Amino acid sequence: MSFKLSILGSNAAVPAHSRNMTAQLLNMREHHFLIDCAEGTQHQFQRFGFKFQKINHIFISHLHGDHIFGLPGLLLSMSLNNRKEKLQIFGPLGIKTYLDTCFSISQSHLSFEIIFHETDPQKSSIIFENNDLTVRSFPLLHRIPTQGFLFKEKTQPRKMLKEKIGEYGIPFHDITKIKDGEDWMSPDGSLIKNNALTSDPVAPKSYAYCSDTAYFDQIIPFVATADLLYHEATFTHDLLGQAIVSGHSTAIQAAEIAKNAGVKKLLIGHFSSRYANPQCLLNEAKTIFPNTELAIDGQVYSVD
Amino acid sequence: MSFKLSILGSNAAVPAHSRNMTAQLLNMREHHFLIDCAEGTQHQFQRFGFKFQKINHIFISHLHGDHIFGLPGLLLSMSLNNRKEKLQIFGPLGIKTYLDTCFSISQSHLSFEIIFHETDPQKSSIIFENNDLTVRSFPLLHRIPTQGFLFKEKTQPRKMLKEKIGEYGIPFHDITKIKDGEDWMSPDGSLIKNNALTSDPVAPKSYAYCSDTAYFDQIIPFVATADLLYHEATFTHDLLGQAIVSGHSTAIQAAEIAKNAGVKKLLIGHFSSRYANPQCLLNEAKTIFPNTELAIDGQVYSVD
Repeated sequence: MSFKLSILGSNAAVPAHSRNMTAQLLNMREHHFLIDCAEGTQHQFQRFGFKFQKINHIFISHLHGDHIFGLPGLLLSMSLNNRKEKLQIFGPLGIKTYLDTCFSISQSHLSFEIIFHETDPQKSSIIFENNDLTVRSFPLLHRIPTQGFLFKEKTQPRKMLKEKIGEYGIPFHDITKIKDGEDWMSPDGSLIKNNALTSDPVAPKSYAYCSDTAYFDQIIPFVATADLLYHEATFTHDLLGQAIVSGHSTAIQAAEIAKNAGVKKLLIGHFSSRYANPQCLLNEAKTIFPNTELAIDGQVYSVD
Repeated sequence: MSFKLSILGSNAAVPAHSRNMTAQLLNMREHHFLIDCAEGTQHQFQRFGFKFQKINHIFISHLHGDHIFGLPGLLLSMSLNNRKEKLQIFGPLGIKTYLDTCFSISQSHLSFEIIFHETDPQKSSIIFENNDLTVRSFPLLHRIPTQGFLFKEKTQPRKMLKEKIGEYGIPFHDITKIKDGEDWMSPDGSLIKNNALTSDPVAPKSYAYCSDTAYFDQIIPFVATADLLYHEATFTHDLLGQAIVSGHSTAIQAAEIAKNAGVKKLLIGHFSSRYANPQCLLNEAKTIFPNTELAIDGQVYSVD
């Protein structure tokens, strides 16, 4: 099952040190989600050879410029590629007015339809669901209304042991029920227990995204036990005061969230431009939560 | 006298082949003008080591996304640099609504004031003037209202021949009049002709900018005899039909404008992404107007 996160930008506020501002591409069970879209995101797609053609859903955490100013250009480029599929955009109230204004002022007519789902970042809710996964929004603590996202796979059916189909002569129309966990009655009347016919499915995985936030322990129930948590870490902990004032976190704080939420792995990003090399942020986070990695532009993180 | 044009983007519509979309930085007598501002323009400033701190005037030719979508991010970056000077923006009606919406939606508060001068691109007028130069807008022929700009130095005072000041004992308070072209009466009553006291000033120079336009010979009177003409050349001439439909020019057409307007030098840009190497466009233009150069991202063109 695919579960890959590609980093399109890891810097805060402005481009610096070959790092762009925030955008991420998540491939989860072959659904391709774009998360935030800073200015220059379409350039990053080109730079790293990532494709934006398969994106059908875009999730916006908040309306600060370094998370949305790349949207109009990316959508126009999709249109110049003659995209026809509808595109769904989930974002705080205002995202529609923003894009409508950009396109009406520039007299641009897209080749495809956008379906907007405007959210209230102060509330948590399931904002997207399909057969394979759900996406839940939850409040973060920033200077303007901001939401995180939990992308969570659904439990898959049990795996049919193929050799048992022949061994017992199980008819095709019974297989769905067996995958759903039922025992099977053979034509001669003997009951075969389900666990003799199936194996456990792959455990559902989850990705939690916390873009811009001060330390906020109310997010812990939402991100608990995630396979991968992305949490911003704008500052080293000596700049805690600055983090508090600006509604951001230190690397220590990101790691404390990861530790207390019992996640499997932490990815930190949204680095202040003052850090030409964000290694100091990684070192700091690892003192609290060893399984931490840096988000690096162009790097792809697989979760197995 | 400084007269330098720096190319920040030479591609049409989307980034391609390491070329960004249109933006230019003009330094004319130490006034720094930004002309158009595609998405990624602030990245280009970084990439090429150009500075945006001295820009006090921005000129926008039209409201298509590939000419304006970099403005909000650049202005926010100026604000993060704690800019205090007022910034003047000249552009078609709508540019203020666009920027106001971007900043209100993203709840951004700039550290400096913007003074908007909204124009009607269908009319030609002097839209800016200071002691050193004027900027005239004039209509281009594109799919939406679009204007070109003529940046023209004013004639400078004549140059005082310094050795004549001592030779004749000319008092300081007479020098301004002499520079303005007057003859000088010495205390003994003899008249000294102005051309014995001064030399000609440097001839005023001009830069004409024609961003997106179909072939349009009505621009010729405006750009006539310019020292440097930038004219878009999106297509080679075999794609003339496509140029006409899309409101763009071929390289041949750009060169015909240059030739008929008697400009000193032609710079072509706004290349279609189909040309990985725009040399074919240059070759074509040179058959009509030999003194043509390609606009190349990051290159600085001096006019002496």
